Amino acid sequence: MRQPPFDRTAAGHQLLERVQVLGRHSDAAGHYTRTFLTPAHQAAARQIAHWMREAGMEVRVDAVGNVIGRYAAAAETRDGPGIAPSPNSVLLLGSHFDSVRNGGKYDGVLGILVPIACVAQLNQAGERLDYAIEVAAFSDEEGARFQTSFLSSRAMIGRFDPAVLDRRDADGVSFVDAMRAAGLDPAKIGEAGIDTTSLAAYVEVHIEQGPVLLKEGRPLGVVTSIAGGSRHLFTVRGEAGHAGTVPMPMRRDALAAAAEMVLAIESRCSAGGSLVGTVGILKVRDGTGNVIPGEVEFTCDIRAADDVARKAAEADVIAKLEAIAARRGVELARKPTHEVRAAPCAAWLQDRLAASVERVLSRDGNRRAARRLPSGAGHDAMVMAEVTDAGMLFVRCGAGGVSHNPAETVSEEDAGAAAEALLDFLRVFEPRSSR
Amino acid sequence: MRQPPFDRTAAGHQLLERVQVLGRHSDAAGHYTRTFLTPAHQAAARQIAHWMREAGMEVRVDAVGNVIGRYAAAAETRDGPGIAPSPNSVLLLGSHFDSVRNGGKYDGVLGILVPIACVAQLNQAGERLDYAIEVAAFSDEEGARFQTSFLSSRAMIGRFDPAVLDRRDADGVSFVDAMRAAGLDPAKIGEAGIDTTSLAAYVEVHIEQGPVLLKEGRPLGVVTSIAGGSRHLFTVRGEAGHAGTVPMPMRRDALAAAAEMVLAIESRCSAGGSLVGTVGILKVRDGTGNVIPGEVEFTCDIRAADDVARKAAEADVIAKLEAIAARRGVELARKPTHEVRAAPCAAWLQDRLAASVERVLSRDGNRRAARRLPSGAGHDAMVMAEVTDAGMLFVRCGAGGVSHNPAETVSEEDAGAAAEALLDFLRVFEPRSSR
Repeated sequence: MRQPPFDRTAAGHQLLERVQVLGRHSDAAGHYTRTFLTPAHQAAARQIAHWMREAGMEVRVDAVGNVIGRYAAAAETRDGPGIAPSPNSVLLLGSHFDSVRNGGKYDGVLGILVPIACVAQLNQAGERLDYAIEVAAFSDEEGARFQTSFLSSRAMIGRFDPAVLDRRDADGVSFVDAMRAAGLDPAKIGEAGIDTTSLAAYVEVHIEQGPVLLKEGRPLGVVTSIAGGSRHLFTVRGEAGHAGTVPMPMRRDALAAAAEMVLAIESRCSAGGSLVGTVGILKVRDGTGNVIPGEVEFTCDIRAADDVARKAAEADVIAKLEAIAARRGVELARKPTHEVRAAPCAAWLQDRLAASVERVLSRDGNRRAARRLPSGAGHDAMVMAEVTDAGMLFVRCGAGGVSHNPAETVSEEDAGAAAEALLDFLRVFEPRSSR
Repeated sequence: MRQPPFDRTAAGHQLLERVQVLGRHSDAAGHYTRTFLTPAHQAAARQIAHWMREAGMEVRVDAVGNVIGRYAAAAETRDGPGIAPSPNSVLLLGSHFDSVRNGGKYDGVLGILVPIACVAQLNQAGERLDYAIEVAAFSDEEGARFQTSFLSSRAMIGRFDPAVLDRRDADGVSFVDAMRAAGLDPAKIGEAGIDTTSLAAYVEVHIEQGPVLLKEGRPLGVVTSIAGGSRHLFTVRGEAGHAGTVPMPMRRDALAAAAEMVLAIESRCSAGGSLVGTVGILKVRDGTGNVIPGEVEFTCDIRAADDVARKAAEADVIAKLEAIAARRGVELARKPTHEVRAAPCAAWLQDRLAASVERVLSRDGNRRAARRLPSGAGHDAMVMAEVTDAGMLFVRCGAGGVSHNPAETVSEEDAGAAAEALLDFLRVFEPRSSR
């Protein structure tokens, strides 16, 4: 079957228009913040459902507010609906439509709108594929309202954490009341779980949220692995003193010790590969210009696509920090605050996504092999990888690669290229791959 | 004339009792804070005046609330008062009775109580000296209420800064109203100025506010110079980014740059001598655990007893910080916030104070030469050094040398030794020294 040429410009234009339309559904007047089950969040859900129906999908909203559109397989449309989903028969595409506070409008949203645009193309051309496409608009990935993380994809794979039910938001509204106010029944959260054996794979389109594609001049990239991460909170206790009266050799300066530790983290995490290490918070307790710091607290966030590399770096950093503390005569306390393992993307999905990226970009005369890169940020694909093979397509960020920030941006051209590549991928995807 | 042996234990016991009595005059219920012209400050002034009179001094309160006791010279008591003060005829002793917020009870106060104790001894023995002793209890050195510095000693030497008149305290009370409420007339501040030609010298007893004497096992020390200081506020601007998605070589991490700068300051200011350098405040703007810091602000306080050494260190630090910024591709802004030149103590006063310290400590079998050390903290002696020769006697701090802190302490034995040494100094002091 020969398809008409894809109008990348028109597709890109419509995608960015829709990003702006969704961006107006914000909890806040002055900036873009959309959190779980607020009125703005529900309005965005209704808008997404509308576009899904317009693209030819059947839409349902599950027990945690995920909006799921289904574009039936060829066999299904012949034999009629109502039959139990067969194993390996559904390709799930998706991303999230909640945001961080004062975030960017592309993060998550683009990965919902691109699949809808692809399905609309198929539908317009009257094409049905050998498998069903489902597009999931996840209701809560960032978790800014109840300090949750991947809440809605976890519920979809039947791994919702009931501890969340006791949470309250910043205004004191309980999680349970927020659900009820949105017409959802907390007792039915279990019903959000799908038959995961029906999934052939999960594929997520997402902005890179970093500068790699931008710096290398590439519109698209294929994710190799979603990095695992370890976070610690360190506290250095030295001895406060008068900045004028304590000779340098007699000092136990908590900030000078912490500064040496920050550099040790930077140095060890610059060993190469996907490894990164960041001290994002550093606080001098009771800091005063003329007082030697007595106590400093700082965070350390270490990530890598490879858990072995990450754990090795983490162990080296801890040993190095303890050695610095011992040499300087300061105390060092350490509290692990977070750990998540890396989620590798399935090799066969990487290969198929790369082939589609290469085919589409070659139409611009670009013959380079597709860029494969790790994702340093977490995504719903990490959760879905627990139950099926997962793949991710990255779209180049503009504005220096900033994300979680109002300056976040994606070009029409790149959004269109993402849709063209995903459509190519869908047309050649085989649900029962010989992987 | 043969004096009776000095009862160091009794003197030390009384000094520490009086420190506690004054310490109860606090602006705050739970801790020790006494600021310019508050009710607690005025009550402390009345208590000090009472002890001065009890010690045989005539007392006056000057136009800025300084309490000044005078113990007349031998000639004066023979010829009667009322004659104009002759040049070089008064030895001024003193320190301040205001405090920092939540400070220590010995800082300043000990330098008022020790001279009063010495005069009381002279008075009891009926001794008059060839010169008049004046003891100044300075009303505002720390300047915690109106963010002033050395206000009252400046007024005494006729260098009051009228800009202070416009200040308001944290409760919105103006400086002028605070003066009036305490029965002082702002229009008469000029009358606080003394005839500085009458001064033979100024000598201040003060706690060390540092750990040097404590670590070396010495009760007393002689100050060589009061350190000068330079303070700067530095701002480092890099590029904020997602802690997971920006590869290490692409980062412009403002905190990692600042950490390298903190260590450069520490390293350069460890070159020896009296030089010290401190980063007391360091703030990561909008610090978040998973965001690469985009902006960091920090202070740098450099001090040395020798201005040449200090300025050389300051220039080197600035050059080093600029080099770090350039290499890391971050911006560095610098704002000088404070500069004060060093005030050397007069060599002849150092020698006389050292001789007295050696005589007194040798009575304990201690034959070491007196420890001479710089003062890293500022004192009223810096101001008085502008108009006369100044000397300082340091008393050992307990509790690790902490000061400006409720944990600040001095032992009875050391306070007694300070009184014994000052009394020895007074008995051999010659106003018209062959310096």
